[in-house]
Amino acid sequence: MKLATYKDGSRDGQLVVVSRDLTTAHYATGIASKLQQVLDDWNFLAPQLQDLSDTLNNGKARHAFPFDPAQCMAPLPRAYQWADGSAYINHVELVRKARESDVPGSFYSDPLMYQGGSDDFIGPCDDVVCPSEDYGIDFEAEVAVITGDVPMCSTPAQALEGIRLVMLANDVSLRNLIPNELAKGFGFFQSKPATAFSPVAVTLDELGEAWDKGRVNLTMQSTWNGRKVGMCDAGPEMTFHFGQLIAHICKTRNVRAGSIVGSGTVSNKGIEVKGKTEWPKGYSCIAEKRAIETIQDGKPSTAFMKYGDTIRIEMKGLDGGPLFGAIEQKIVEFVAAE
Amino acid sequence: MKLATYKDGSRDGQLVVVSRDLTTAHYATGIASKLQQVLDDWNFLAPQLQDLSDTLNNGKARHAFPFDPAQCMAPLPRAYQWADGSAYINHVELVRKARESDVPGSFYSDPLMYQGGSDDFIGPCDDVVCPSEDYGIDFEAEVAVITGDVPMCSTPAQALEGIRLVMLANDVSLRNLIPNELAKGFGFFQSKPATAFSPVAVTLDELGEAWDKGRVNLTMQSTWNGRKVGMCDAGPEMTFHFGQLIAHICKTRNVRAGSIVGSGTVSNKGIEVKGKTEWPKGYSCIAEKRAIETIQDGKPSTAFMKYGDTIRIEMKGLDGGPLFGAIEQKIVEFVAAE
Repeated sequence: MKLATYKDGSRDGQLVVVSRDLTTAHYATGIASKLQQVLDDWNFLAPQLQDLSDTLNNGKARHAFPFDPAQCMAPLPRAYQWADGSAYINHVELVRKARESDVPGSFYSDPLMYQGGSDDFIGPCDDVVCPSEDYGIDFEAEVAVITGDVPMCSTPAQALEGIRLVMLANDVSLRNLIPNELAKGFGFFQSKPATAFSPVAVTLDELGEAWDKGRVNLTMQSTWNGRKVGMCDAGPEMTFHFGQLIAHICKTRNVRAGSIVGSGTVSNKGIEVKGKTEWPKGYSCIAEKRAIETIQDGKPSTAFMKYGDTIRIEMKGLDGGPLFGAIEQKIVEFVAAE
Repeated sequence: MKLATYKDGSRDGQLVVVSRDLTTAHYATGIASKLQQVLDDWNFLAPQLQDLSDTLNNGKARHAFPFDPAQCMAPLPRAYQWADGSAYINHVELVRKARESDVPGSFYSDPLMYQGGSDDFIGPCDDVVCPSEDYGIDFEAEVAVITGDVPMCSTPAQALEGIRLVMLANDVSLRNLIPNELAKGFGFFQSKPATAFSPVAVTLDELGEAWDKGRVNLTMQSTWNGRKVGMCDAGPEMTFHFGQLIAHICKTRNVRAGSIVGSGTVSNKGIEVKGKTEWPKGYSCIAEKRAIETIQDGKPSTAFMKYGDTIRIEMKGLDGGPLFGAIEQKIVEFVAAE
């Protein structure tokens, strides 16, 4: 089934079930009004939502209405955890190579993850609001999962069983704030503004064969100002699968229902063409493009995003049909409220 | 007023109003069942809770019952944000001096903060559960505030206006996991297990004159295995007040209602006694004691906590009476569920 949260002026919105083709939706009223409720009591509530989903997909839901992604908040408009990985080591390799530093050997066995802010997510079509273009505004196209309860010390295999839903994320990053912030040693803070998520979050069965033991074997499409800049394979080159990422978190604590775990920027290795390395699949964040340019030409030539820029992030299903819906955002300047 | 959350088997417990002297409590049923609800709609609900609090303090609440801190969850059993500062620069200076590294000049104007996990807090009398003593188990006695909505780009003065409640925190840290984790550059993760909070969270008026523009001028008492090891002044040496910490977070994003912001380990400068530096006020975490030992003797002599150890963290009011109640925890070994 596919779930979304419609804006209704409240902090947590209204849970809706969305049809497989993303054309129609139905309020989940009577079952649950908020997605967090469903995650808190999954075994009881999910089957009821599944029934509604089946009815909707059969065209028999009485109060179905046309689905509009612009009415969506993030599927979980606020969450108790947003833990983001950097699971595509190729991305780390490129960024480090551009600044002539090596990737520590431990990075290939010990996932790189950061704790993100989860109190103020934004919807798939909400503006990215930023106080300054000088901060180096970048998108990051990621896959993310929402978990149930995963107890402390769970193995990667056990953690995989705790995955409830999959969606896409735009983990907006302010690149020019990152070096100073990471130099302080305590991780990201100001360099990570509000994260946006796809219109719908889907259960694993909606992915079919594309769900491959904690990886999603589909193409992450990123379109910047109308130009397709990324067609990256999200599956095979994901160094750590989602079960491994979740197990990393629960080494010393419980992961509770409604935790969101991100993959980090989807990234593919370059290929050798006539003795030169090329990246025909493009990129899922501008920082990676700039790293490639630095490796190739000694310096980056692609600028970060400006006010008015647009970004579209999408992933089609195995059948070529819509899966999560598209994140479609515009970058706008912050204006203080009166 | 003073608010607590009673265990009832649910994830968010039941909101109770607690008398000023912490002897009696009353369910807030009919006003709000969860603290997050109150924070989401403070201006409407807080006055109603204040009325109940007044009635309770006058001994006239009909269904009052004896207050038992052991029945408490964290005041917010799970939160949408836990942002912890390291606002007592003296602590940073000591730890860095012990490893012979300097404190960067920027640390005196730019607060050090990390994003913590907020999905799985524990109550004031809940065990600290850890998979291994080898992780270097430490307590950290901190002051923490819970905010309302604080918009992006708020000034420190504006951010101060967004503070709703104050409480204490035990930001348990696994010291031996920290060096490797921080070396990866993305901040804390496995080194920060579940955080515990005091039995009650209080409004600013309960602090009276002790609330000094974002600082709490009271003594943080830490008692380890029955021995008082810390009587640290929490006020004057807090380099960054809570308004500054919150403004740091909202430079690039909104801080939403129910965000918890911590002070970091309360720490006081040493004093010169006969040409030697001494720390008569003790310490609010073992790492600081070990740093002092390293500075004085070349190596630490105090070991971290063992299974069975206890820690009590408390802060009395200006009148010497109870304020937040005490955090009283035991360290226990993690045992996997059957």
